[in-house]
Amino acid sequence: MNPTDTIIALATPAGTGAIGVIRLSGPDAIGITAKAFKGKDLTKQASHTIHFGQMVDDDAVLDEVLVSLFIEPRSYTGENVVEISCHGSQYILESVIKLLMRKGARAAKPGEFTLRAFLNGRMDLSQAEAVADLIASNSKASQQVAIQQLRGGFSSQLQSLRDQLVQFASLIELELDFAEEDVEFANRDQLKTLILQINGVIGSLIRSFELGNAIKQGVNSVIAGRPNAGKSTLLNALLNEERAIVSHIPGTTRDTIEEVLNINGISFRLIDTAGIREATDAIEKIGVERTMEKISQSALLLYVFDATTISPTELQYDIETLQTPGVKMLVVANKIDLINPESSNIAIFQHCNLPTLQPSNFLQISAKQKLNIEELKQHIYSAAISEKLIGEETLVTNIRHLEALTKTEEALSRVLSGMDTVTSDFLAMDIKQALHYLGEITGAVTTDDLLKNIFSKFCIGK
Amino acid sequence: MNPTDTIIALATPAGTGAIGVIRLSGPDAIGITAKAFKGKDLTKQASHTIHFGQMVDDDAVLDEVLVSLFIEPRSYTGENVVEISCHGSQYILESVIKLLMRKGARAAKPGEFTLRAFLNGRMDLSQAEAVADLIASNSKASQQVAIQQLRGGFSSQLQSLRDQLVQFASLIELELDFAEEDVEFANRDQLKTLILQINGVIGSLIRSFELGNAIKQGVNSVIAGRPNAGKSTLLNALLNEERAIVSHIPGTTRDTIEEVLNINGISFRLIDTAGIREATDAIEKIGVERTMEKISQSALLLYVFDATTISPTELQYDIETLQTPGVKMLVVANKIDLINPESSNIAIFQHCNLPTLQPSNFLQISAKQKLNIEELKQHIYSAAISEKLIGEETLVTNIRHLEALTKTEEALSRVLSGMDTVTSDFLAMDIKQALHYLGEITGAVTTDDLLKNIFSKFCIGK
Repeated sequence: MNPTDTIIALATPAGTGAIGVIRLSGPDAIGITAKAFKGKDLTKQASHTIHFGQMVDDDAVLDEVLVSLFIEPRSYTGENVVEISCHGSQYILESVIKLLMRKGARAAKPGEFTLRAFLNGRMDLSQAEAVADLIASNSKASQQVAIQQLRGGFSSQLQSLRDQLVQFASLIELELDFAEEDVEFANRDQLKTLILQINGVIGSLIRSFELGNAIKQGVNSVIAGRPNAGKSTLLNALLNEERAIVSHIPGTTRDTIEEVLNINGISFRLIDTAGIREATDAIEKIGVERTMEKISQSALLLYVFDATTISPTELQYDIETLQTPGVKMLVVANKIDLINPESSNIAIFQHCNLPTLQPSNFLQISAKQKLNIEELKQHIYSAAISEKLIGEETLVTNIRHLEALTKTEEALSRVLSGMDTVTSDFLAMDIKQALHYLGEITGAVTTDDLLKNIFSKFCIGK
Repeated sequence: MNPTDTIIALATPAGTGAIGVIRLSGPDAIGITAKAFKGKDLTKQASHTIHFGQMVDDDAVLDEVLVSLFIEPRSYTGENVVEISCHGSQYILESVIKLLMRKGARAAKPGEFTLRAFLNGRMDLSQAEAVADLIASNSKASQQVAIQQLRGGFSSQLQSLRDQLVQFASLIELELDFAEEDVEFANRDQLKTLILQINGVIGSLIRSFELGNAIKQGVNSVIAGRPNAGKSTLLNALLNEERAIVSHIPGTTRDTIEEVLNINGISFRLIDTAGIREATDAIEKIGVERTMEKISQSALLLYVFDATTISPTELQYDIETLQTPGVKMLVVANKIDLINPESSNIAIFQHCNLPTLQPSNFLQISAKQKLNIEELKQHIYSAAISEKLIGEETLVTNIRHLEALTKTEEALSRVLSGMDTVTSDFLAMDIKQALHYLGEITGAVTTDDLLKNIFSKFCIGK
């Protein structure tokens, strides 16, 4: 990291388009561009202005371009920034980049523009991470969470917590200076109250990760059941309702095709499985094993059975076989339009001796007649996610943040439990740890490894 | 075409990038953007300035953006233009476009921005076409030709020709008014001199199409020869020299893989064929037919033979079989490093009774030892293209322009040949036709069909 040089990269996606934008940042961004620009003297123009001219390589005109100037610190990175809008030919864009590299710019590394924005204090670390989330956002919910984090909502909440802790840390440090006199500058009752209050906030941020992560990553869900239970019909019924926002995604595992179902802004990736049977031979066993493997990689299992044909023994066998620790299970009785309401499959359900089955995870539907499909969706949502997205709340979406918050909570719990028994120096140590982990989120505390790890995941040009 | 409304489109390629740019053009471009922009009052800002703010849908923030303003007529289209630089998420870009369409913008049709630039007199038709060529340009030569045309070199040359013709047309029109008096206002000798001069220029423009088209489209070239003649080794030898600018392009026809070889700025698309043999059975015949089909779709045939094994009869058979009207043929004797220089294959060549074989289309090489490979490249270039690219000359690259120039030349030839025999009204008609066709190139004469045909080939957003 050498913030004294000037970096360059294509900022728009690769490929042919009407225009493509090349971005430079660094002390010499304007000077380097001016060396290859035929038009006004770019070094004498005001910030936030646009200038028409030609990019020229000696006498050869590479392109007619628009150059936008941002003079430090009024730019994305806080440095001088130039954006060159070219005709969208990959050949031309590459030629202009090569030309400006010959004039003194260096090819930017992934995320280096945003890294510079962070190093120059234009944004904190959680905001920088939000930039990547925003670019990757593909739904209203993920976009909302990212923009909320980009605008600092997340950081400011953590910052005020950290400020309160810093006060106590300094009081306890003071006690250390007077260790032999056994004084208490930091009121232990107030400290306890503050830590409980902070851990309350941190706890709700930690709990928000389930929803935040589901919004950002989607929820892996498996549909399983015996052959002819109506799994495909159910899949279609679920998807037909949302045709507009459904897409086919080639699965990451072998030949699996996933379907994406959007419920309340959350993407559920539905993975259909081959029908399961009781394993009577080797081949059946392999089929069951594959299904079990997919279930274990998911957060939610939708078990579908044919209410007109299944026996209580079979149902009990299936549920016991399929249930997997850590995977929420929803049991769906299908084809209820074909059975006598009097002798309904509720009877079958009641014959099962399964304490795990509750009204909240059991639903009767007809996939073919589209009965209770909307109810099923809300059950799917509730089974996977305990909270609803209600707008402007702060959600943790980043596993790095989750880990730092969890470690903060642990350190603060140690402070709480040791408060009456351990000496001030141990208390101070635990509080410092909590401060350290909170600081890692906003970037108040950073290491080169941490920064490298975060920004290497960015695309080049950002 | 209704230039009173405001159009909108994504101007950058689809896909995820650091940023994406949305463009609006029309009288209400700034007003519409301002309705969804939280920041400065955009309607009160100067042209060519950039403003940071948020795109908001009621209270929900869609993105933090930079808005660039271009106030008519100082813009690409000559209308008010707004460019919105968003984070490069496809979801966000689509959301912003949909939002601004709800605020009054209409989705742009392909090429509609450039069409408006033409209708508003910001560029002539050949310059508008150059924009599409520039975006599609993928080599130094194609970029140079397109930028030359964009900057008006092509149009201005045609415009001055057309101006001279207009003068004569008006003099001859004048003669028509005095038809009964049998006067000649237009000096026939001067007219003849002018037309010869014009046809000279037009003729060289027409001839430049071969090179211009080769630059723009590349040259389809087939390599054919008997099995083990060394076709693949030759292909590698040709490509090894230019490793940096070689790429694998999946062919447009079935399973063919093309290799691209760049010689003097021209892309030669080399299509390898299965080895040919004398057709002794049905399967061999199919092989030969396929090779012949590929040859007939190409501009150049590279026939390679093994100089150590081929007999004069075989050579003669191959050449006679492969030669195809309209396809230039280059005969390459391979493996000359393995034969005695004294009994060289020149002897074989001399035994062939083939008047088409000339030193200019016959070359001895060793693909394996890389002997004469550079010479072969220059032969390939000369065989396909009679002219060299020497910098800033005007080249015709567009088949529409070629047709218009050819029709102009025909009309002018009619003027020439009829000058002493036909009456002024016929002369006037032919001159008007020539003016019409010249005007079609620059857009001085247009029809809706012509414009639709040209701009429908543009990408959306340009």
